[in-house]
Amino acid sequence: MSQIINRRRFIGQGLILGSGISVTPALAFSEFAEKKVRLGMIGVGLRGTDHLENILLRKDVTIPAICDIDPERIAVAQDLITKAGNKKAEVYSKNDHAFLDLLKREDIDGVIIATPWEWHTPMAVAAMKAGKYVGVEVSAANTVQECWDLVNTSEATGSHCMIMENVCYRRDVMAVLNMVRQGLFGEILHCHGGYQHDLRKVKFEPGVEFGAKGIHEAHWRTEHSVKRNGDVYPTHGMGPIANILNINRGNQFVSLTSVATKSRGLHKYIVDNGGKDHPNAKVKFHLGDIVSSLIQTANGETILLTHDTNSPRPYSLGFRVQGTNGIWMNDGNNIYLEGTSPYDKWEPSADLLAKYDHPLWKRLDSDIGNAGHGGIDFFVMNAFVETVKRKIAPPIDVYDAAAWSVIAPLSEASIANGGAPQKFPDFTSGKWQNRKPVFALNDSY
Amino acid sequence: MSQIINRRRFIGQGLILGSGISVTPALAFSEFAEKKVRLGMIGVGLRGTDHLENILLRKDVTIPAICDIDPERIAVAQDLITKAGNKKAEVYSKNDHAFLDLLKREDIDGVIIATPWEWHTPMAVAAMKAGKYVGVEVSAANTVQECWDLVNTSEATGSHCMIMENVCYRRDVMAVLNMVRQGLFGEILHCHGGYQHDLRKVKFEPGVEFGAKGIHEAHWRTEHSVKRNGDVYPTHGMGPIANILNINRGNQFVSLTSVATKSRGLHKYIVDNGGKDHPNAKVKFHLGDIVSSLIQTANGETILLTHDTNSPRPYSLGFRVQGTNGIWMNDGNNIYLEGTSPYDKWEPSADLLAKYDHPLWKRLDSDIGNAGHGGIDFFVMNAFVETVKRKIAPPIDVYDAAAWSVIAPLSEASIANGGAPQKFPDFTSGKWQNRKPVFALNDSY
Repeated sequence: MSQIINRRRFIGQGLILGSGISVTPALAFSEFAEKKVRLGMIGVGLRGTDHLENILLRKDVTIPAICDIDPERIAVAQDLITKAGNKKAEVYSKNDHAFLDLLKREDIDGVIIATPWEWHTPMAVAAMKAGKYVGVEVSAANTVQECWDLVNTSEATGSHCMIMENVCYRRDVMAVLNMVRQGLFGEILHCHGGYQHDLRKVKFEPGVEFGAKGIHEAHWRTEHSVKRNGDVYPTHGMGPIANILNINRGNQFVSLTSVATKSRGLHKYIVDNGGKDHPNAKVKFHLGDIVSSLIQTANGETILLTHDTNSPRPYSLGFRVQGTNGIWMNDGNNIYLEGTSPYDKWEPSADLLAKYDHPLWKRLDSDIGNAGHGGIDFFVMNAFVETVKRKIAPPIDVYDAAAWSVIAPLSEASIANGGAPQKFPDFTSGKWQNRKPVFALNDSY
Repeated sequence: MSQIINRRRFIGQGLILGSGISVTPALAFSEFAEKKVRLGMIGVGLRGTDHLENILLRKDVTIPAICDIDPERIAVAQDLITKAGNKKAEVYSKNDHAFLDLLKREDIDGVIIATPWEWHTPMAVAAMKAGKYVGVEVSAANTVQECWDLVNTSEATGSHCMIMENVCYRRDVMAVLNMVRQGLFGEILHCHGGYQHDLRKVKFEPGVEFGAKGIHEAHWRTEHSVKRNGDVYPTHGMGPIANILNINRGNQFVSLTSVATKSRGLHKYIVDNGGKDHPNAKVKFHLGDIVSSLIQTANGETILLTHDTNSPRPYSLGFRVQGTNGIWMNDGNNIYLEGTSPYDKWEPSADLLAKYDHPLWKRLDSDIGNAGHGGIDFFVMNAFVETVKRKIAPPIDVYDAAAWSVIAPLSEASIANGGAPQKFPDFTSGKWQNRKPVFALNDSY
């Protein structure tokens, strides 16, 4: 860590980094470098232990308590904690509501919630009521009411809730955000994003099992493909776009329309891998294989969001950012900028993304070690920890959690109504008009 | 041409080409190779003379008459005709309705209509009533009523109307169609297409002029960007997808929803290139810079269609064809097929597209010479000429002309109503359920 601290001191002397973004004098890094944050982990499944491993790489966080109803996962987590040289955490695991006891502890500043989707909002609400800082996994909520519950609770308690959307910190996405802020794409008009990830081996494990006989995410996640038809996992695709478009900060989502294809992939996977006589071959999956949503914003941009998790395909979030002066296409990894690109010819994006590397990535690149998902898990946790230290609002806040997560129930409603447009609630109650962008304005977190 | 005739004889002996598609014994090519077709050209602007040049490469078509109200274009056309060794065509040019006199000629089998969009349907209707075979440029119609006019006239007169959608014949598109028909992508679920072409230098010429002071397409096309907001040019993106999905032949479009971004690009172009004081800087353009439409089909597929003509960007029709077994992405030029592609990795599409090259391209590749748009203009004209010779329905017929063209007015209506879904008329009056695919089933045309 000495390397980080040295560099922080260096930056703290008020130097200006490249790329035209001036660095806030680092909010006196020396003050916060020494400060410790105490976090409780609610949920230490596969995703929760990803977070735990990233936390254990830091010297400024302790884990006094962990919660999970699965003793095997508790053992895995304790093993990670002790092997990193820490004493065991206290365990809360007696039933589904054990997290309430964890929240009573006074030696916890915040919690990381990485549980099945249907627990995200109840746990986040309870944690905010207990005065804890909340970092909640994506999506933060599943229904319109849950989105309001998050917002209302945060406003009533003054507690903060950050949605832990790691894709916001993807290096290419942040370089493009940097380019957008420097005006290279002109006025932004249209964006694409989505979650295009063949999850069939996640939705079925082991073999073609899910639900009671399933393990890991197949134990609970697949049920959402049985019962729901909509973009049930919208935030990985939408988070980066919302930052680019300043959603909730001078702009907002206005309306959404969604359509879904027929549902074929999950049934086919069961038949192909478990045989047509396997009991799961009788399950009717409600989720269309590809769900496409078009979203309109208050400032006149449009967004295409895609959910595509049941079909064989290479992973791609399919980003596109297009303005009056140019366009970035994630598929194909190309950029075109009027005036500098050869006329009517794509330029491979690598050089431009390197040139406009975001200051935060420049500063922390060598420190991210083996953090998950190419480093982005480090960044999202770092942002959470740093804002807890400072006792300030997180860069991705409860209004973002609500506006991004509400896409799921709105898309379900649109599909159920033949693609009829659905209005977005204004979770900010008008505050979006005057709120200013805060996400990654400099290199501090 | 001897090479073509030889090859036709070869194929005519009943051999089977590769790729698993058996060749119809060439409908006795010898009969049709000698047959002559007499075509009238209605409109010899830039697009009309493209077609004329392709026709003049053939020995089986004569041009007894041409029609255009612009004497300069008539001169260009006559020059092309005589330089190719033909006698001059008779000219019809006295006013906007001169085409009616051309249609009275009995020595014309068919007409090619390549005029401003608003003339397509009136001219096609008049030509069908005169008993002529119609080849009409895209889009065939601009309003729902015009679409019905085309269909009703064709049904009442028994005359055929082919929409001259050249992109249906793009080599990669036809290879993918071939792969789809052989089941390589599994059951098709979702497609993308569009018209993503920076037309600013077409919409303004010379300089930043259009309308009365504009030339070529700027003389009339730009006005559609002033008055209309919708996907005003849908067929290049939709034609190939409609063939893949068997639209009007076992399947049909059901509903559409569209959204448009703000309109910035055309005004910006005028200011940037003509100054903020140029009179055209006061023009308010109604067309959103990027129009996105989502379409649902009777068989449960969904389609994204994009219209993007006002912004700096490299040309791309952005095709995507995705099924239960794989996906083709035009942007990036990649394919993924489950079982044969390396797991979770894109394969560059070139080898597969070559392997599954459509039999029609295989047969005619060496004969297309300098035909426009990479050869596809030759193919679409060839299909028209060959079906006129055979006095049969064209492979892209009046129902296709109506169903593809109606996307424009439906998208305008959807945008005007906040993205509300619009129902497609059933132009086939139920016949779509039993009609069989006919487009490019073999290598004959």
